[in-house]
Amino acid sequence: MPTPTVIDTLISARWIIPIEPVNTVLHDHSIAIDGERIVAILPTSEARQHFIADNYHQLTDHVLMPGLVNLHTHAAMTLLRGYADDLPLMEWLKGHIWPAEARHVSTEFVRDGARLACAEMLKGGTTCFNDMYFFPEAVAEAAVDTGIRAAMGMVVIEFPTAYATDPDDYLAKGCAMRDRWQHEPLLNFTLAPHAPYTVSDDTFAKINILSNQLDLPIHIHLHETTDEITQSLTQYKQRPLARLHDLGLTSPGLIAVHAVHMNTEEIALLAQHGCHIAHCPASNLKLASGFTPVATMAEYGLNIGIGTDGAASNNKLDMFSEMRLAALLAKGVAQDASAIPAHQALQMATINGARALALDEKIGSLIPGKYADLIAVDLAQINTLPTFDPASALVYSAGRDQVSHVWINGKLLIDNHQYTQLDERTLKMTARVWQNRITA
Amino acid sequence: MPTPTVIDTLISARWIIPIEPVNTVLHDHSIAIDGERIVAILPTSEARQHFIADNYHQLTDHVLMPGLVNLHTHAAMTLLRGYADDLPLMEWLKGHIWPAEARHVSTEFVRDGARLACAEMLKGGTTCFNDMYFFPEAVAEAAVDTGIRAAMGMVVIEFPTAYATDPDDYLAKGCAMRDRWQHEPLLNFTLAPHAPYTVSDDTFAKINILSNQLDLPIHIHLHETTDEITQSLTQYKQRPLARLHDLGLTSPGLIAVHAVHMNTEEIALLAQHGCHIAHCPASNLKLASGFTPVATMAEYGLNIGIGTDGAASNNKLDMFSEMRLAALLAKGVAQDASAIPAHQALQMATINGARALALDEKIGSLIPGKYADLIAVDLAQINTLPTFDPASALVYSAGRDQVSHVWINGKLLIDNHQYTQLDERTLKMTARVWQNRITA
Repeated sequence: MPTPTVIDTLISARWIIPIEPVNTVLHDHSIAIDGERIVAILPTSEARQHFIADNYHQLTDHVLMPGLVNLHTHAAMTLLRGYADDLPLMEWLKGHIWPAEARHVSTEFVRDGARLACAEMLKGGTTCFNDMYFFPEAVAEAAVDTGIRAAMGMVVIEFPTAYATDPDDYLAKGCAMRDRWQHEPLLNFTLAPHAPYTVSDDTFAKINILSNQLDLPIHIHLHETTDEITQSLTQYKQRPLARLHDLGLTSPGLIAVHAVHMNTEEIALLAQHGCHIAHCPASNLKLASGFTPVATMAEYGLNIGIGTDGAASNNKLDMFSEMRLAALLAKGVAQDASAIPAHQALQMATINGARALALDEKIGSLIPGKYADLIAVDLAQINTLPTFDPASALVYSAGRDQVSHVWINGKLLIDNHQYTQLDERTLKMTARVWQNRITA
Repeated sequence: MPTPTVIDTLISARWIIPIEPVNTVLHDHSIAIDGERIVAILPTSEARQHFIADNYHQLTDHVLMPGLVNLHTHAAMTLLRGYADDLPLMEWLKGHIWPAEARHVSTEFVRDGARLACAEMLKGGTTCFNDMYFFPEAVAEAAVDTGIRAAMGMVVIEFPTAYATDPDDYLAKGCAMRDRWQHEPLLNFTLAPHAPYTVSDDTFAKINILSNQLDLPIHIHLHETTDEITQSLTQYKQRPLARLHDLGLTSPGLIAVHAVHMNTEEIALLAQHGCHIAHCPASNLKLASGFTPVATMAEYGLNIGIGTDGAASNNKLDMFSEMRLAALLAKGVAQDASAIPAHQALQMATINGARALALDEKIGSLIPGKYADLIAVDLAQINTLPTFDPASALVYSAGRDQVSHVWINGKLLIDNHQYTQLDERTLKMTARVWQNRITA
């Protein structure tokens, strides 16, 4: 009999859905974690012979799965959650959101808002998010403080804001942020030009060079509304995607957010160039942007992740809700009840998001060697009984409130539904202070 | 100074959304309950002078609102939650659901499944549901046992099942059930012909007579799929609604469930005759039935309530999730971000459902004289902070896990997230026993 190996953490669970290999449910298996990484997945009956762990978790009614990857956020906008709803898009933006941002957005706003977002996401099983907002260094700080993995967008927009004066200034500030934080294990970076209608050809050219030099994905809102396309046809005589393609941006580094209005040729183009989609179903409905042809995109082999968008247009950062909506809406749009089955929805919310961020060698599935970013979901609740199929239970029945444990980089951040390091009272108090300031 | 009145319960809350009058948010008000009914709603500053209560609840971070009315359920189907998913409709029904029902549905199945459903609904803030299933007397028993209000469908279908042999037998059994339970304050009754494609003209004629004699609403699946309409055109040379209209069923007693495929003339007809819609957005997406034109229906003045449908096609009985989806989806379908704003979604999930059941004089809003069917939702959670607008928080951000208290008929059934009378362990164990039987 071999001598057991001493490790940090051993987790035994009723089910494990490792995401890789696909469509797999392991029964009564355990995950061994040492340091930041998964070292083994094996039947629980063998685990205690092979490993001695400092921390042992026996989760008899739970499913373990990779942490959820939220592929599109404006984390700081939690502070504007429910500030303005049920308004036509332009009235919402110009009459409410932009003026509020102009008055309030600062390093402090972004740090506090992002901390609230990180806390909300952590508790709901999100272990990585892909952010785009002003003052990204404040988001970086919030993410590292709270222990969540994140990709920081080096945001670029043509017009001046409290954060930067012109595209060169945005890029300089983005690069400075990356220089400062690039050795932080939890952080990754993207170039984040806001959208085709707010960024010029010259600026896109610079972004493209930087993206190639620094090997960074490009995170951009694309074909969110029909107005965006109409305006581009007027101004550039081509649709936004065609323009980006001519500018050389269609590559495996491109994360196209929303991508609501994509015709078949455009879907084929995106697939051919290995681009990625950040599908935001709730936001696309709430702002009446349209219906993304997700099943068609999947048929073309496009990699589709899921994002919540910001809390101002969702109004929650709940990847369980978003994953369910993505699976349901895809069926309605495709007129096919078998479109995007449960396992595929789980893949979209995990490995596909990781792949879009070029992190699929590191996170997004539970395999030895990857970082230990994983969650436990308690299915022994009235809401998820009977449990004929844990994948179905996760996608169609469970709520984020059933997430009981969250580990990131091997570190336990949610233990039996409680934060291990965050002070919830302070977070709530800060949210209320901002509410008072914003309504003052 | 007047002598205070002694009452059973006084609840003080940060906010009350009474639903009637519409679009109203009361701050720092209290609700006085005596016996089964609301006796007063008044500012909290005055409440303690006017009332002395046996039970006092001070809910400093909560919103009080009417309990949610789930306008379409097959409660017992919780036992088939996640049993078969992601399949085309007919394969799902004929290959999985109907065979499982044929093997298992019995008084015991229905009572146990309905108890699980009642428990799930209660905890999530649903205080009344409108059911259609075999062995409705077992659902009645489960509802009364668990303390939830319900409308029992006297189900009728043309073919024999374990429950009844022919339409006359279904109707006789339905009438017997009503005779037995008609004095139970929690129970109400509907005639529940399954659908136009499973019920003959002769049977509809009998149902229409009974509906008029007994003054009972008619609860029926209608225009759920395009197939249903095509088949009716072949068999009856008319669309199902036109057939029902010719049979004299279009009246303020008609609750049309799903109503996905309704053209403008049909919407106008339904509105003109005071019919009601039970909108089931999750089920309609999951089974790829189509997109209900909810905003158009609302413009025509149609009364639209919200239902979850059964757990086999949803897969949860979560009216918070359903209300949010109804509000979001209506905007997408109408291409109008201002369609079905938060207050309107709250009305759909409360008073509109009550109105469809002809219970709007008794429940569905918080006004003195109505039954005390109400819920408290704790908004001081990270998910719902800041809280600029409690109506927005309820519809777009809150989860059913934030429901802290539930009263029905003045009786406290959920107290600080816990059942006051149900034994959760027994419920879970029963669900697992059925899971074993069904998979055996």
